[in-house]
Amino acid sequence: MKTVSIFDIYLNKIKLNSKINIQGWVRNRRRSKLGLLFIDLYDGSCLYTMQVVVKDILSNYDSEISKLSVGCSINVFGVLISSIGTKQKYEIQAKVVKVIGIINNPGSYPISSKYHTMKHLRNVPHLRSRTNFFGAVSRVRNYLFNALHEFLFKNGYYWIPSPIITGLNSEGAGDMFKVSILDLNNIPKNKNGKINFKKDFFGKEAFLTVSGQLTLETYACSLSKVYSFGPIFRAENSNTRRHLSEFWMLEVETAFSNLCDIIKFSENMLKYAIGIILDKCVIDINFFRENVDEKIFCRLKDFSSKQFFQIEYKEAINILIKSNRFDHKVMFIGMELSSDHERFLVEEYFKFPLVITNYPKSLKAFYMRVNDDNKTVSAMDVLVPGVGEIIGGSEREERLNVLDRRFFELNLNKEDYWWYRDLRKYGTIPHSGFGLGFERLLSYILGIKNIRDVCPFPRTAYKADF
Amino acid sequence: MKTVSIFDIYLNKIKLNSKINIQGWVRNRRRSKLGLLFIDLYDGSCLYTMQVVVKDILSNYDSEISKLSVGCSINVFGVLISSIGTKQKYEIQAKVVKVIGIINNPGSYPISSKYHTMKHLRNVPHLRSRTNFFGAVSRVRNYLFNALHEFLFKNGYYWIPSPIITGLNSEGAGDMFKVSILDLNNIPKNKNGKINFKKDFFGKEAFLTVSGQLTLETYACSLSKVYSFGPIFRAENSNTRRHLSEFWMLEVETAFSNLCDIIKFSENMLKYAIGIILDKCVIDINFFRENVDEKIFCRLKDFSSKQFFQIEYKEAINILIKSNRFDHKVMFIGMELSSDHERFLVEEYFKFPLVITNYPKSLKAFYMRVNDDNKTVSAMDVLVPGVGEIIGGSEREERLNVLDRRFFELNLNKEDYWWYRDLRKYGTIPHSGFGLGFERLLSYILGIKNIRDVCPFPRTAYKADF
Repeated sequence: MKTVSIFDIYLNKIKLNSKINIQGWVRNRRRSKLGLLFIDLYDGSCLYTMQVVVKDILSNYDSEISKLSVGCSINVFGVLISSIGTKQKYEIQAKVVKVIGIINNPGSYPISSKYHTMKHLRNVPHLRSRTNFFGAVSRVRNYLFNALHEFLFKNGYYWIPSPIITGLNSEGAGDMFKVSILDLNNIPKNKNGKINFKKDFFGKEAFLTVSGQLTLETYACSLSKVYSFGPIFRAENSNTRRHLSEFWMLEVETAFSNLCDIIKFSENMLKYAIGIILDKCVIDINFFRENVDEKIFCRLKDFSSKQFFQIEYKEAINILIKSNRFDHKVMFIGMELSSDHERFLVEEYFKFPLVITNYPKSLKAFYMRVNDDNKTVSAMDVLVPGVGEIIGGSEREERLNVLDRRFFELNLNKEDYWWYRDLRKYGTIPHSGFGLGFERLLSYILGIKNIRDVCPFPRTAYKADF
Repeated sequence: MKTVSIFDIYLNKIKLNSKINIQGWVRNRRRSKLGLLFIDLYDGSCLYTMQVVVKDILSNYDSEISKLSVGCSINVFGVLISSIGTKQKYEIQAKVVKVIGIINNPGSYPISSKYHTMKHLRNVPHLRSRTNFFGAVSRVRNYLFNALHEFLFKNGYYWIPSPIITGLNSEGAGDMFKVSILDLNNIPKNKNGKINFKKDFFGKEAFLTVSGQLTLETYACSLSKVYSFGPIFRAENSNTRRHLSEFWMLEVETAFSNLCDIIKFSENMLKYAIGIILDKCVIDINFFRENVDEKIFCRLKDFSSKQFFQIEYKEAINILIKSNRFDHKVMFIGMELSSDHERFLVEEYFKFPLVITNYPKSLKAFYMRVNDDNKTVSAMDVLVPGVGEIIGGSEREERLNVLDRRFFELNLNKEDYWWYRDLRKYGTIPHSGFGLGFERLLSYILGIKNIRDVCPFPRTAYKADF
């Protein structure tokens, strides 16, 4: 007897009137006056549940079936038919209902059928995926993840597993976690009193990477089109709804490309991915339309069909000054754009995704290519309403003498980057790349304000349980 | 003018006699007596180079082109024609050769055209991807990675980003790295002299995960079919050719499945992936046939068409005893299989992939389901010749009372696993899963003995440079 998923049934892969097995968890149950029990069964394969109709003549009806509560797991053998009810397309007439896992004290079940706040659900991340909300997030996440890989595969990009543990303590992108096996109760010291990292696992200080870009560039300088897609870490205690200490980042590096190329490429990539979501995730997106953002379909269709706005950093400053929304005294070319500034630009002024280019070099990392004005770098950020920056990218400085000047200006020891400099010594090439924050993109797509709700087990300051 | 890749040309996507741009690095160059310069250009898109024919009438011929050495980067504009030479199918008659990046001192280039030992290349991982060997490894890796995702996608599995940083210091799979932001020169202490982890980033001790399985199970108990695929860490100083401290692991968990199901599923998955490699990576696999394993095509075809052998652990012990190859005095039911034992079984006795099932529970982790004999667990390892174990899996103990007994037997504090126990309290289900070592599978496929040569920047004891 073949076990089928509820999604297979809704995809019309299963013939009506065939005998099937389905397995899952009780989502709801109600009794009719005619002695019938209706069970809504959920198996996670899609948002829909399957209505199981149980007659009280089944041998274990009184002893087991009638006692089932929300969350119990069962195996149902029965006949698939068109439902005569209006709320669902199909139902199963149960011949056998085997009870697999019960809940001894249904009142204590943290995911009972009543309404739960997001705050409550954040405390039970091991169970919250049983709700419609987190099930739908997970399914859309899967399609988004696969769509991004697919786009890169089709465009001839090779996936590279850039390393997570790094011996380089400045990759130009944020505070780092240390990785060690030293006994913290008994740190080995040298005669001069300094820590003896030779006794540590890697024989030197080691950290969790904040970006795979620098190592990825080594592969762009040999395979031309490469990307990495893995977890990235930031040890910043920024307790906001937009930050995670551990998140997935897609990083793309392209040989012989410039800023225009990667702006176009990243825009096409995002549109492709959202096109896939609109095509394949209608049921789940409709759930978010009903529960989170009623304009979600319009928003995503606009996103995938209209061109992004594009302005230079200095135009952005002018718009902000002219808006009279911010204190003029602290507005100047060279200032950092705060998240308030970004939100004004993308949510109130342009009201659509926006690319900002050519930032002052003082605001950006050493590896971004210096423009001819020697004041700005050939960089770009992509901002979207509700979330802010989801992509940051740039041309990479391929001129060794300019790169060395940047190391000097930023007080970085160029010898630490000897291998990165080698790429510029031996057949250097113009190249560009960008990084996409995966969870931020998913937040934007679903209209979910708190990034902790698009991540299975979010890691933030003081949160590493589970 | 469209820039095309060499792979596109070999896929016949570009019309003969069309004018094209190609970009890449000089792999080789030689001069004919007729005043022609032949440049082999490599762009990493495939193993093949493109022959560029340059006449000495080009304006920058003497000043630049004639001085090009191996590794220099150039942009070529010219006409694509059928090659009259026998060594290649196509060539490009250059109209313009623009020199992009030179090498000032060609003799110092670590990847010159002479033969290099693997040992030398391991010291320059930032450059070794420019060689045919590491280029081919990278391209096959990409196809393997995508094939595995594709197989799981087609089978209705959802990808879950299981967390990397964990607060749980025993996941039952090996030594862990610590993750911290504490100042090692000034560790904060409580009044009782113990380390005050409340001052650390996560407010408690934190580690790099050795397996995503436990958190992944929470999603199997809601979405039914899930997998994770990300980096995994082991702080074991095992300086062998089979171990990395950081590697990628594919972990699959399936609700309502048993050991037979996952043995069949994992075998099908491996065969699917290797089928894709045989179909899509012929050029690169042929390189490994010529340089690493002359029987690679036969080996992979056999792998993807013949059924794996399957024996129980106790049969494995009997075979080892009867073989008279090992010291009888230390051979007994309950012993750990060493890598020598595994190699004998899979390389000499069966000479083909082998699944070993039902190991003594004393050898395996707490979460594996105890068999009715109360001596063994419903577990399986998949071994392949040349590499050993590439997959380990089991049914997961879904009975709370048995799980608690295992915690007690293994001296683990069951309260640390409260959320894992919750899965058994609330609608528990039979389920099974397995983990696949990605780099080991790639080693096996390519016939590469040292796992450090299938990883871009391998991390092992005393190695975290780059």
